[in-house]
Amino acid sequence: MSLTRGQLDGLRACGNAEILTDPAQRLAYGYDNSKQQAQPDAVVLAEDSATIAALARWCSAQRVPLVVRGAGTNTVGATVPTRGGIVLSLERMHRIIEFSPENQYLRCQAGTRNGDVQARAQDAGLFWPPDPTSSGFSTVGGNLGCNAGGPRAVKYGTCRDNILGLTAVTGDGRIIEAGCRTTKGVVGYDLTRLLVGSEGTLAIITEATLLLRAQAEARWSIRAAYASVEAAAAAVSAMMAQPVRPCALEFMDATAVKLVREHGGVELPGDTQALLLIDIDGAAERLADDAATLRHFAAHNALLDWSVASDPSAAAGLWQARKALSPCLRSLAPQKINEDVVVPVSRLPELIERLQQISAQFALPIVNFGHAGNGNVHVNILADFAIAAQRAAVEPCLEAVFSCVLELGGTLSGEHGVGLAKRAFVAREVTPSSLALMHQIKQVFDPVGILNPDKTLPAI
Amino acid sequence: MSLTRGQLDGLRACGNAEILTDPAQRLAYGYDNSKQQAQPDAVVLAEDSATIAALARWCSAQRVPLVVRGAGTNTVGATVPTRGGIVLSLERMHRIIEFSPENQYLRCQAGTRNGDVQARAQDAGLFWPPDPTSSGFSTVGGNLGCNAGGPRAVKYGTCRDNILGLTAVTGDGRIIEAGCRTTKGVVGYDLTRLLVGSEGTLAIITEATLLLRAQAEARWSIRAAYASVEAAAAAVSAMMAQPVRPCALEFMDATAVKLVREHGGVELPGDTQALLLIDIDGAAERLADDAATLRHFAAHNALLDWSVASDPSAAAGLWQARKALSPCLRSLAPQKINEDVVVPVSRLPELIERLQQISAQFALPIVNFGHAGNGNVHVNILADFAIAAQRAAVEPCLEAVFSCVLELGGTLSGEHGVGLAKRAFVAREVTPSSLALMHQIKQVFDPVGILNPDKTLPAI
Repeated sequence: MSLTRGQLDGLRACGNAEILTDPAQRLAYGYDNSKQQAQPDAVVLAEDSATIAALARWCSAQRVPLVVRGAGTNTVGATVPTRGGIVLSLERMHRIIEFSPENQYLRCQAGTRNGDVQARAQDAGLFWPPDPTSSGFSTVGGNLGCNAGGPRAVKYGTCRDNILGLTAVTGDGRIIEAGCRTTKGVVGYDLTRLLVGSEGTLAIITEATLLLRAQAEARWSIRAAYASVEAAAAAVSAMMAQPVRPCALEFMDATAVKLVREHGGVELPGDTQALLLIDIDGAAERLADDAATLRHFAAHNALLDWSVASDPSAAAGLWQARKALSPCLRSLAPQKINEDVVVPVSRLPELIERLQQISAQFALPIVNFGHAGNGNVHVNILADFAIAAQRAAVEPCLEAVFSCVLELGGTLSGEHGVGLAKRAFVAREVTPSSLALMHQIKQVFDPVGILNPDKTLPAI
Repeated sequence: MSLTRGQLDGLRACGNAEILTDPAQRLAYGYDNSKQQAQPDAVVLAEDSATIAALARWCSAQRVPLVVRGAGTNTVGATVPTRGGIVLSLERMHRIIEFSPENQYLRCQAGTRNGDVQARAQDAGLFWPPDPTSSGFSTVGGNLGCNAGGPRAVKYGTCRDNILGLTAVTGDGRIIEAGCRTTKGVVGYDLTRLLVGSEGTLAIITEATLLLRAQAEARWSIRAAYASVEAAAAAVSAMMAQPVRPCALEFMDATAVKLVREHGGVELPGDTQALLLIDIDGAAERLADDAATLRHFAAHNALLDWSVASDPSAAAGLWQARKALSPCLRSLAPQKINEDVVVPVSRLPELIERLQQISAQFALPIVNFGHAGNGNVHVNILADFAIAAQRAAVEPCLEAVFSCVLELGGTLSGEHGVGLAKRAFVAREVTPSSLALMHQIKQVFDPVGILNPDKTLPAI
C-alpha cells in the first residue's frame, strides 16, 4: 500500500516532523540487525511528544501501522515494518533534558544515544548500567523498548532496574507520564516497567528519567581457562552464590575457544575447553582481595590458567578472546542464528551439556557464549543454508534448544527480545491466561492495534 | 449487608478454605494499622490458588467485594473492607515451595512471613532485601502488595527490585503466571512489577519467587550528630552521590532528637539538632576505609559527633536513638498522622526547612525522620484531636505538605502506599491520562470491580 496525497497532507498536519517518502530513503528505515526487511510507506522524523501524539491519533483513525525505531540495532526484527505504514524515527529527539548528578538521574529524549548518556554521566563520575554491544549508537528508547542488558547487568541490572520514570504516547495518542524522579515511589500502578521491554507495542516512549550509578574507583579483569566446559559452568554458579559480585562474568564454550584460537589469533593454554572473562570493580585497594575470593570459588582441578589484569591495556589483552569472537562468527557463519536463552545459573552445566548433544543430534555446529553470571547464554547455531540438510535441521534444532531451556526452568530471551524472531515460541513459555491478559493490556494502550503489529505477542 | 445461607453455601463450594462468620472473629479481620475499621461479611482462610480463583469467580458473579489481607500491618487502610464482603486471609498459605540458594531465589506462598523468609535465607548466607519494621510478622504478599521497602532499600532496593516472578488470581478468577526464575527475562509484558504495589486491586498474589542477595561479611553502624538540620540533610545528599553506598541512612530532625532525649533517655551532644544513623556492610577489612570515606562526605562545621560501632552491641547503642523514637511518638501522640513522602535527595534540606515553616504556620508540631538516603521522609503531624483548632488545621496542613513535596519534584508515598489514606491526593501527582489508563488496566484485571474497592486509584 502507499499513501495518498490526502494521507500525506494529514501526516504533515501532525506537527514538527519531516516526512520521507522517497523509496531509497524509506528503504534505510525498513530493516534492522535481524536482517529482515520490509518497506514502510513513509518515514516520520518527529521532534516532540505532541507531534507523536497527533501522529498516533492519525494512524489510529486511518488504521495505518506505526512502528517506532531507535537505531535499529535489535536482532529480532522488532523494528521491521512488516505491514508497511509509518516508521517513526526518533533520531532527532536526542536532547538531554535534565541532568541531576546530585540525585543520580538523567532525563533525556528517547532518541538520545546510549553512548551520549554515558559521556555526560561520566563527567560527573556516574554511568547508566545498560551496556549492550551497540551502546555507541543504539538509543535510550530502543534500549528501553527491548529492556537491554549487557555484561554489566550481572552486577547493576538491566534497563528495568535502572529507570525512574518516562513519558510515552499510547496507540490512541494519549501522552502519559509514568514513575517519578526518586528511587522510591508507590503512587499508582507501575506503568514504567510495563512499558520497558514491550518493544513499542503498547506505547511510544518519548522521554525517560534514567537512574545513574556512581562509577567504581577501579576495575580489574580476569581470564580463567578451563579444561572442561562443565568445570567453567560450575565455577560460574559458585562465584554467583557469594557476596563479591563481578561486574561482568562472560563465558565461552569449547567451539568458541577453538574459533578465536584458529581465526582470531588468540593464544591460550593448549587444553583450554572453556573460558571465563570476569571483571570486578570497586575501591582500588579492595580488588586484589576480591580477585582472590573469586579464585577461591572458581578453583577446580580443570582450571588451567587464571590471569589477572589491573590496568586497562592488560585487561584489553585478556578480553581479546571475547572481542575476537563476534567478528570470527560473522565472517565464518554470516547466517548464524543467535538465541539468547537464560537458565538459572546452577543449571548452566546441564544446559551446556545438552546443547552439545543437540548439536550432535542435528549435525549443526553450535557455539555458546554470553553473560553467564545471569545464566544468559548466546546459543549460535552455525547452519550453512546452502546445504539442504542443514537448512532443514534448523527449525527442529531450535525447537529442541527452546524445549531444553524451558525444562531447565529458563526463559527464551534474556535481553534480545521477541520481535518477529521468537514470537512463534512465546506461547511455549507464557501461559494462555497470562497471554490473554497481555493482549487485553495491549488493547487498552492501543485499541486499534496500530503499534508495531506482528511483534512480541503471538496472536491468540 | 450479610450473606444469605445460599451465599454461604456458594462460598463453601469454592474449595479448601475455612469460612468465618462469627461477628467477633470477623471483627479481627476488619482493621489494620491505619486504625480504620469496617466489618466484613465473612472471612475466608484459603489454602491454595485454585480455591482463591473459585472465590474470585464467585465474588464477581455475586458482586461481592473481595479484600485480600496479609497480616494487616499497613498504615493506610489498604486492607479495610470498606464495603463489607469477603476478607480473604492468606495466613494458612505460608509454605516455602522452593529454596534455591545456588540461584539465590526462594519461592513461597504469599502468606509466608517476611521473617520466615529471612530465617530460611540466612542459613544459606542470603537475605531478602525488603525489611519493613513489621518484618517479624508482615507477609510476603502484603509486602509485595505495598511494594514495601525499609532502611535497607537505600542499597538493595524495594520489593519491585527483588522479585523474579509470581502467581496471582485476577478479579474474574483467572490464575496467571508472571515473570521467570532468572535475573534476566524479556518474554512478554512485565506483569510482575505491575502487580507489585497495586495493593490487591488488580489481582491476588498467591505465590512469589523472591530474589535473594548474599549477606555481607560484616556490618558497622555510625551515628552522626549535627548542630543544624540543614547540615545533616546536606550530608545525606553528599554521601548519596559517591560510590560507597550505605545499607541504611536514616535521619531524625530536631523535634525527633528532642523527643528521644527527653522521653527516651538517649544521651547526645547538647547542641544536637539532627541525627543521622548510617549502616555500612561489606568485607570486614573494608569497613574502616568506607567509614572514613563517608565521614569525608559528611563533614561539616556543624558536625558535632561521629560515633562508629564495629560490633552489634555498640551498634545497638547508637541505634537506640532511632529505635526509641516510635515508642515515644506512640505514647506522646497516639493520633499522630504519619506521611512517608519522598523528594530527590538534593531537595532534602529545602523540604525540611519548609516543613518547619508549615509546622509554624498551622501551629502543629511536626516530627520528621526516615529513610533519608532515598529522600524518603516520615512526616509525623502531632495534632491533638481534643483541641478544635488543631483538629481543624490537620487537613490544610496535609495539603501544604503534599503541595510542597510535589513542588520539590517528589512523590506522595515512598513505601506506605495509598490505600484509603492518600487516595484523595493521588490525582495531585498522577496526570489524568495516566490515571485513566490505570483505571482501564484495573478493568482488564477485575472487570466487575470486586477487588479491594475504594483503594489506590481515586474515582474518575
